Amino acid sequence: MARWAPDSRGRLERAAWELFEANGFAATTVPEIAARAGLTTRTFFRHFADKREVLFVDGAMAAYAQQVIQDAPAELAPIEIVRHLLRRAAAEQFTGRDHVRRVRAIVATDPTLRERELGKRHELSGVTEAGLIARGADEVSARLLADLTVTVMYLAVDRWLGSPETGPELAAFVDEVLDAHAELHGDSGPDPAAGDPVR
Amino acid sequence: MARWAPDSRGRLERAAWELFEANGFAATTVPEIAARAGLTTRTFFRHFADKREVLFVDGAMAAYAQQVIQDAPAELAPIEIVRHLLRRAAAEQFTGRDHVRRVRAIVATDPTLRERELGKRHELSGVTEAGLIARGADEVSARLLADLTVTVMYLAVDRWLGSPETGPELAAFVDEVLDAHAELHGDSGPDPAAGDPVR
Repeated sequence: MARWAPDSRGRLERAAWELFEANGFAATTVPEIAARAGLTTRTFFRHFADKREVLFVDGAMAAYAQQVIQDAPAELAPIEIVRHLLRRAAAEQFTGRDHVRRVRAIVATDPTLRERELGKRHELSGVTEAGLIARGADEVSARLLADLTVTVMYLAVDRWLGSPETGPELAAFVDEVLDAHAELHGDSGPDPAAGDPVR
Repeated sequence: MARWAPDSRGRLERAAWELFEANGFAATTVPEIAARAGLTTRTFFRHFADKREVLFVDGAMAAYAQQVIQDAPAELAPIEIVRHLLRRAAAEQFTGRDHVRRVRAIVATDPTLRERELGKRHELSGVTEAGLIARGADEVSARLLADLTVTVMYLAVDRWLGSPETGPELAAFVDEVLDAHAELHGDSGPDPAAGDPVR
């Protein structure tokens, strides 16, 4: 069986989740996951590099971001490509609060998962930076905007998860955070009449 | 001997560096480092949690940032506290290109060191966020500015390391990057006459 079993990826994911939530992430092994899914360990490793990967629905986020940036309308300036990407991702990659909450709850229990998550953020930032440079951004802007993309994504998701189920969709929080970002320098500079004590 | 030997931290650092650069980071053990410094393994662990910590001169960066933010002049707005912190750190924590280059060269050789570096960035961001909230920043601005602080620090250091030895000091690159950040939204919005295809 196994090899061409329908939806083997989905079955592995469901089995892994059930075991993670029942026994904890650390205590769950890949053979257990495979057995529960009625598949082989080898099949597991065709779909996931290791058991941590099962958790990162945004594992494909870097590839997704790369594609969206590449396909973004030609007239968009770099900052607007970022907004475009974040709004697309909000609509297409984060479809329900529940799943994101479950992932976060498990990641919080395990230091190796938290490290992996930081690695994922870094990867997303790197891909975004390269994509923005390919779209004509200068090096400094590309790096600033790439890290901003990751910051806004995580911050908007935090705020979305903390809001009522019937509240606004994630895209609204993306806009809120990006708009706050646009104001960072604008409304908070020191009073010019007072001189600038820093520089 | 050992216990109150003068400058035992400095001797351990020098010994570790010599071994890392001669034999590689992975092949170097804590007992070897201690022996070369003429100290005990136990003394090593009083100064460093593990051998990775020897490399992170910015290991103390989070504590430093916390203090500088707390002591920043009362009249500074959050964005100006960030500039103040980055300029202070540039002057006080990064005194020569050579040492920073040596650290980077070793970090680049080892995945566990790269992970630790991402963890350090995350820690610096967290401390900065808490410090800015204590200084009156709202939650969204504090998080945006905290991640910005880390991004600007690493980006400015990259540009500084890539510049001639006789070129500007690190603080000048901090200003360059922060000024570019202030322009991100300003000069790059889409042409209003064209409509906004994103929103």
